[in-house]
Amino acid sequence: MTAPQDVAGPPPAVKTATDTKPTATAPGTIYGLGLGPGAADLLSVRADRLLRGARHVAFFRKAGRAGQARRIVADMLPAGVVEYAMEYPVTTEIPLSDPRYNALLSDFYTTCTAHLRGLAQGGDDVVVLCEGDPFFYGSFMHLYSRLRDDVPVQVVPGITGMSAAWTATGLPVTWGDDVLSVLMGTLPEDVLTEHMRRADALVVMKIGRNIDKVRRALQAAGRYDAAWLVEYAAMADQNVVPLAQAAGRVTPYFSIVIVHGQGRRP
Amino acid sequence: MTAPQDVAGPPPAVKTATDTKPTATAPGTIYGLGLGPGAADLLSVRADRLLRGARHVAFFRKAGRAGQARRIVADMLPAGVVEYAMEYPVTTEIPLSDPRYNALLSDFYTTCTAHLRGLAQGGDDVVVLCEGDPFFYGSFMHLYSRLRDDVPVQVVPGITGMSAAWTATGLPVTWGDDVLSVLMGTLPEDVLTEHMRRADALVVMKIGRNIDKVRRALQAAGRYDAAWLVEYAAMADQNVVPLAQAAGRVTPYFSIVIVHGQGRRP
Repeated sequence: MTAPQDVAGPPPAVKTATDTKPTATAPGTIYGLGLGPGAADLLSVRADRLLRGARHVAFFRKAGRAGQARRIVADMLPAGVVEYAMEYPVTTEIPLSDPRYNALLSDFYTTCTAHLRGLAQGGDDVVVLCEGDPFFYGSFMHLYSRLRDDVPVQVVPGITGMSAAWTATGLPVTWGDDVLSVLMGTLPEDVLTEHMRRADALVVMKIGRNIDKVRRALQAAGRYDAAWLVEYAAMADQNVVPLAQAAGRVTPYFSIVIVHGQGRRP
Repeated sequence: MTAPQDVAGPPPAVKTATDTKPTATAPGTIYGLGLGPGAADLLSVRADRLLRGARHVAFFRKAGRAGQARRIVADMLPAGVVEYAMEYPVTTEIPLSDPRYNALLSDFYTTCTAHLRGLAQGGDDVVVLCEGDPFFYGSFMHLYSRLRDDVPVQVVPGITGMSAAWTATGLPVTWGDDVLSVLMGTLPEDVLTEHMRRADALVVMKIGRNIDKVRRALQAAGRYDAAWLVEYAAMADQNVVPLAQAAGRVTPYFSIVIVHGQGRRP
């Protein structure tokens, strides 16, 4: 699982009786822990073990909210664990294209990273909670790219939210040689339409306020009647509905639209 | 997790003292169990629990081989479990486009299904081992489509092989609004090239003897120098190498090629 760049270096030189220099503290490891789609028993056995043995846990959340990652593991945190909540700065007033948006987020990740780096350099392991899979979209990557040259980082992959979404539809998503395209609802409508035309199976994430644009793109691509809307996949309030039957629906940002492939099936 | 179609029906009518009809055996459930990419501790906690409590386990394998799914769980099978090996028919002599190919596979899945249906109708639960995620390519779907109307089937999603592959590269695969396309190396070269040109991030599966075609398509799309070849992701013999440095390499069918997206990163 360890990234090639993260492989432990050569073993430390053997100490002898004449070696009197004080030993530097061995750095701790930062674990990017894939939590999977949202059910506590869909963590991997490895992630479950690391989490239950953690002394430091870090997670992202919106200001004033409990945080979805924290909620998933609420019943699994060991007694006495030290929590570090990384609260996203409020950016709703700043358009995505404004340089201030990037600068604000960059500062935020730098601050979080400094704290985590300090813990690891002091010898502590830290588990960073990541919804889904840490390297598949998501915020952990912005910490990872800032930490990987300084301290040991290990990534534990997780079940993606999209896996839970297509499982929830009760239909396989890809067969035979189907091409699957994963699209963000935040993309421009014409880009969405073009990809929706060309792929066999589709996953569209980041729905929320983009739902009407996603509908129009699916319609233009001739895929609308085959689309499913999945809300809260793998969670207690999971809901699956044909998209065409959900007209006017207000749906969360983390909802997922699925169009199944129709490839070879003997 | 349960598919909408698989939700348990209404509870059985309450029995009264005058109800003398013999009770039919309640059917068992067939579990499509996602095993993840190949490490025993990358099963989900749910899959681990179901597997360790199983009385019947079924899995696919090539004739005369131990089977990769069976190998992953070798140390986890409970004592006394009944194993059902589903051995793929030998099809190497028949081209994929020959109708006999489809007929042979269809007969095979029908035979497997009959056995599993019999077990479930007799009241037994059966765990079917699925590498990766059961609804993402793979063979379980061909059993599922034949069983789902007759007996209860539940699917447990798993970590995909591609998640393990991009984790192994030590680099996040998708950022911001990146479009990810998942392609099979078995596709025609021009189809591969076209998708490789249009997507930001790429996963190419089913490599093996298709590797030279995949190379040519990546070169034509201008993506070759950014491509990584991942063999045995998450397994003991995991190997990651830039594709351009693996010229002439013979690689397994289940190898995965990754091209990382370069999207927004504050």
